[in-house]
Amino acid sequence: MLYPLSYRRLPFGGFYYTHALSQRKIESQDCLTMHNMANPVVPARGMRDILPSEKEKRDQILSTIADVYLRAGFLPIETPAVEPLSRLTSGQGGENEKMLFQIMKRGLPADGTVAVRDAADLGLRYDLTVPLTRYYASNIADLPRVFRAFQSGPVWRAERPQKGRYRQFIQCDIDILGDESITAEVDLVVTTLSALTALGLGDQVKVLVNDRRFLIGILAAAGIGDDNVDAALIALDKADKIGLGGVRAELVDKGIADAQSADRLLALVASLQDEQVCETALKDGHVVVGDREVSLQDLPAIVAAVRELIPQARIEFDPTLVRGMGYYTGAIFEVKHKERDYSIAGGGRYDKVVGKWLGRDVPACGFSIGFERIVDLVADTETQGKKVALLYKPGGSPVDLLRLRQELLDQGASVSLVVPPRRPNSQFFDGLAEQGYTHSLDARREASAADLRELSF
Amino acid sequence: MLYPLSYRRLPFGGFYYTHALSQRKIESQDCLTMHNMANPVVPARGMRDILPSEKEKRDQILSTIADVYLRAGFLPIETPAVEPLSRLTSGQGGENEKMLFQIMKRGLPADGTVAVRDAADLGLRYDLTVPLTRYYASNIADLPRVFRAFQSGPVWRAERPQKGRYRQFIQCDIDILGDESITAEVDLVVTTLSALTALGLGDQVKVLVNDRRFLIGILAAAGIGDDNVDAALIALDKADKIGLGGVRAELVDKGIADAQSADRLLALVASLQDEQVCETALKDGHVVVGDREVSLQDLPAIVAAVRELIPQARIEFDPTLVRGMGYYTGAIFEVKHKERDYSIAGGGRYDKVVGKWLGRDVPACGFSIGFERIVDLVADTETQGKKVALLYKPGGSPVDLLRLRQELLDQGASVSLVVPPRRPNSQFFDGLAEQGYTHSLDARREASAADLRELSF
Repeated sequence: MLYPLSYRRLPFGGFYYTHALSQRKIESQDCLTMHNMANPVVPARGMRDILPSEKEKRDQILSTIADVYLRAGFLPIETPAVEPLSRLTSGQGGENEKMLFQIMKRGLPADGTVAVRDAADLGLRYDLTVPLTRYYASNIADLPRVFRAFQSGPVWRAERPQKGRYRQFIQCDIDILGDESITAEVDLVVTTLSALTALGLGDQVKVLVNDRRFLIGILAAAGIGDDNVDAALIALDKADKIGLGGVRAELVDKGIADAQSADRLLALVASLQDEQVCETALKDGHVVVGDREVSLQDLPAIVAAVRELIPQARIEFDPTLVRGMGYYTGAIFEVKHKERDYSIAGGGRYDKVVGKWLGRDVPACGFSIGFERIVDLVADTETQGKKVALLYKPGGSPVDLLRLRQELLDQGASVSLVVPPRRPNSQFFDGLAEQGYTHSLDARREASAADLRELSF
Repeated sequence: MLYPLSYRRLPFGGFYYTHALSQRKIESQDCLTMHNMANPVVPARGMRDILPSEKEKRDQILSTIADVYLRAGFLPIETPAVEPLSRLTSGQGGENEKMLFQIMKRGLPADGTVAVRDAADLGLRYDLTVPLTRYYASNIADLPRVFRAFQSGPVWRAERPQKGRYRQFIQCDIDILGDESITAEVDLVVTTLSALTALGLGDQVKVLVNDRRFLIGILAAAGIGDDNVDAALIALDKADKIGLGGVRAELVDKGIADAQSADRLLALVASLQDEQVCETALKDGHVVVGDREVSLQDLPAIVAAVRELIPQARIEFDPTLVRGMGYYTGAIFEVKHKERDYSIAGGGRYDKVVGKWLGRDVPACGFSIGFERIVDLVADTETQGKKVALLYKPGGSPVDLLRLRQELLDQGASVSLVVPPRRPNSQFFDGLAEQGYTHSLDARREASAADLRELSF
């Protein structure tokens, strides 16, 4: 008999075996650690295994994102995971350069010693932007004049391991190189929102935008000198954590700004906490600090264009948005999820990076989805099509079993070979349903054409 | 006007710009090298960039393979690219262990020196089998009793760079853990053939099978002692390169076998070069060496089952098939393409590897497609659906342009924004057609509903 499984599904059904139950996961690790305390069989520190159910979900999310990006004309590329150390330590990576995994030179004498600074010649990429700009410089003759690139893949950072953070993780970037106009910014924001919408997150997110030139402008207008710009931005970046009072204290205590400059800056930022004041600033195209007008640069045009293209989009000007990377030169953006206090995507314009490799500057702008941060936000999808659990006993005739599987495959089903317990009970079948199987077929008893007909795919 | 591009396609049409023309590629690299001889902007030695057209093809091939494997019930998994050095140097990797990229410990004093053997604690995986078996040991409590795994991803080997060989490349493996019966072998062969068939290679390949136990058996029967088994297998493995005469010379010259044993072995192998003799051996289930019968183990049953399941499959017993990895314990297999002198897939049974991590043996069998070796064999596919080149000039209104793109996307097209030359000529449009575009639409002149209707998607 072929059993359709859906009616066996209970809201809180039991499991026979299943994937990624965190409680069981912990027990199994404990048990394995017991078995061999000296060398527990676990991934390297800060690395992780992806179990099948999670891998399926991750691949589905990546595929949804890729579909949106590719259809919108972003060209897929791949760069090596490994780049020469000199490129990864050239200052383009900011803080990430400190978290570099360095790869040893090959052929060093096994019994010898080596100076630490001479031991490595390669490194694992810590982001996709440095490799992309290097790729563009290497392959410019083969790429379109305005190059829209889509790249996704793992990056590595030797961060202190902590809950939910891993030392290998996926990034998912789109970038536009060769377009200095705001078409690039608007395209990136609109396409990133399309991808998030395709994942069912469209109505849960808002885009925050700011501009590095605006930030530098208000610092100057407030009386904070060039030498203190970086330190002042680092302080301002903490506004959402330590509040504006905390930012003021840091500015003054660290000697980044005198009390008057700090007050002038903070008064402006405080006034821009009000949504209406922000909207007025966007309309005016500038703000007034003391006796000076500071331009909002392209922000009014970018915000207006996005709103016109996607009326339901939430996009706001946020004067405290700084973003860590030092290479940004213009507009910067982040996507916040309404239930998370961290950003799930971020990017901006970086017109000076390609020049480091190519010898001449090329305008560039990118937007990166923090893949690991959205996986949990995306709802699990229902099984697509028919998914058959073909129950069998190892050691039987491979021909009968695999021929039956082929017949089911030929009818369009997905088929998993499953070894059932000695006496399959309802808990077992509930477990199959929970795992997304739509039918079961017992290959040990009957495997007739009649059973197959019941599938009625 | 919306121009359908297909009629502009010429058999040897020109290009305006294009991807991956090797000649131009070389020129561009030369040019970049000129620009900065000290630090040419190229990938790290032995690594490579994947250009968009090639990336598209590679992703399509991977997706075709994944579809076959997942539908046949192999569960997708992912392991970290990085594993502890001790696991990667435990002897499971054979020759590959010598090509390991080692990752330096973090936090070594930048101005200090370090003993080479203490400098690294991690390594990049050189295959997917060692990580898979480690993964199985780590996660056994969460995995099915018989675990069918599908894993694809990059691996790294510090080989001497040579034409067509790279230090980072993709492997694409299916493995069955927990099934000691030949259902595993047959399933792996049949499913790998299904994947190759889905790629259009089914009628161009043949499967060669042998068994490690049979090989050891004929060596023993010929009088070659246990101590010399590995060396004898290495010699036998060269049969297709140096001929049986060369194998005999190596056996005798290196003192692996005396002349009588070598002759006895080579006489058997020579007789099995005859297809009919092989078929008879498969029927008998053994061969006779001197006065001893040596069993073909499961080979007759495996070959018969595969032929029964796929009547058009070419599968042959090859007594000179050895395969490099020392961990094989039973059946071994390779897939040869009729036009290539190297294998495009390979695998076998390795029942003793999981035990290294888990403390108890688990039967295991795997088959790996050499992804890089099949990319060139697979025919380029035609563009799926409508692919529109939307011609625009950077710096114009992003709203008009991106709204038009959205309308095209909403109608199901893929849309690329393309900056045309000042005077687009037929060469330009030929180039678009060559790149797979089916239509072009000039966003600079007209972008009306009437144009969109002409698409008639």
